Amino acid sequence: MIVNAELRHRIADFHAAYAACLDHGRLDDWPDFFTEDASYRITARENFDRDLPLSTLSLRGHGMMRDRLYGVQSTIFHAPYYQRHILGPSLITALSDDTVACETNYLVVRTKRDMPAELFNVGVYRDVIRVSETDLKFTQRVCVFDNDLIPNSIIYPI
Amino acid sequence: MIVNAELRHRIADFHAAYAACLDHGRLDDWPDFFTEDASYRITARENFDRDLPLSTLSLRGHGMMRDRLYGVQSTIFHAPYYQRHILGPSLITALSDDTVACETNYLVVRTKRDMPAELFNVGVYRDVIRVSETDLKFTQRVCVFDNDLIPNSIIYPI
Amino acid sequence: MIVNAELRHRIADFHAAYAACLDHGRLDDWPDFFTEDASYRITARENFDRDLPLSTLSLRGHGMMRDRLYGVQSTIFHAPYYQRHILGPSLITALSDDTVACETNYLVVRTKRDMPAELFNVGVYRDVIRVSETDLKFTQRVCVFDNDLIPNSIIYPI
Repeated sequence: MIVNAELRHRIADFHAAYAACLDHGRLDDWPDFFTEDASYRITARENFDRDLPLSTLSLRGHGMMRDRLYGVQSTIFHAPYYQRHILGPSLITALSDDTVACETNYLVVRTKRDMPAELFNVGVYRDVIRVSETDLKFTQRVCVFDNDLIPNSIIYPI
Repeated sequence: MIVNAELRHRIADFHAAYAACLDHGRLDDWPDFFTEDASYRITARENFDRDLPLSTLSLRGHGMMRDRLYGVQSTIFHAPYYQRHILGPSLITALSDDTVACETNYLVVRTKRDMPAELFNVGVYRDVIRVSETDLKFTQRVCVFDNDLIPNSIIYPI
Repeated sequence: MIVNAELRHRIADFHAAYAACLDHGRLDDWPDFFTEDASYRITARENFDRDLPLSTLSLRGHGMMRDRLYGVQSTIFHAPYYQRHILGPSLITALSDDTVACETNYLVVRTKRDMPAELFNVGVYRDVIRVSETDLKFTQRVCVFDNDLIPNSIIYPI
């Protein structure tokens, strides 16, 4: 696989579509951005840099993802909030025959009803994306965040 | 019309030029980013999602835009502030023969003299852009913002 | 030189790699993004707009850059913090045979240990980049920031 203009645009679109999915609260579509057995983790930079396994959230596969969404929507008691993802340019770090690894800085701004907008989560996505002719899917997405003091809880996926 | 690399780059440039125009205070150039009878709205997500017409600002055509700029520069009493737009990647959502619809997440950081920078307005641009051989123009730009608690007022265009 | 898709992608990659270098604390690699005698300045917008020479930081050449890094790492007493750069799209403003000038809005979010993330520095990079077949290097990078009230000090490069 080579990194041509078309692949770059597909990757940028994939990131933008993922952000739009979460920002607009279409949670049920979220697992579709991942392969069936993909892993999804949210972890503090402090832990990631030391290769420590502790994660704020760690899911593997659509089953666990859908379970988390069920929790978010039906069992966790929480105040609703808006998310808005602002993404920087992606840096491609590795390529194989059918996957591409890339890093993308992100900022998630949270807005609660009648409250000012806040810096909620800031860090870098460390992704492995499986590229096929028809679509892109994450086989791995690790959200490594800088701000280990989390305001309240991370409820929705990042 | 097809979404090729060239069109993507023209769209990205158009967004960047629009942001630079506002961020550098070149307000008189702002209407030129729109067609003569374009509509420009700033509206809260809460209203947009419910299809409610109430907007923080709603302008149609260069005449109303220039009137607003006259107000901003000559009749509204307000403390000046800097704006800085940080834009995410654009997601193309629809195409016709000569227009493209797209969504772009944005964050506007405001800085007042001798004050820390603040998250001023965060949301998504929902645009319809008319594409011709020579230029791009908005026929519609709706700024849908998440943070319905506005710090002071929105004076300048977003 | 013409601004084709390949050059645009090289510029986007260069910006992303620069941000990743600083965000991940690989300070020793930082001068390699510049030509041997490049200039690097951090200056307030208020001064820049009036053509005033005062800069928060002004370095010329690898020697001064390495001296600054030595200071940051060995002689300046400061609390460590994380940086995270969120970059908007780049706007190309001038071209010559082997250089390209461009402007890129940036937001640097700072996170100190056990503190919430903060808007640390927000502004625009005004760059001149030398383009060769093998690589890109800044001959000039001016970081023009809006928020002249700096929280503590700017220790690391922006």
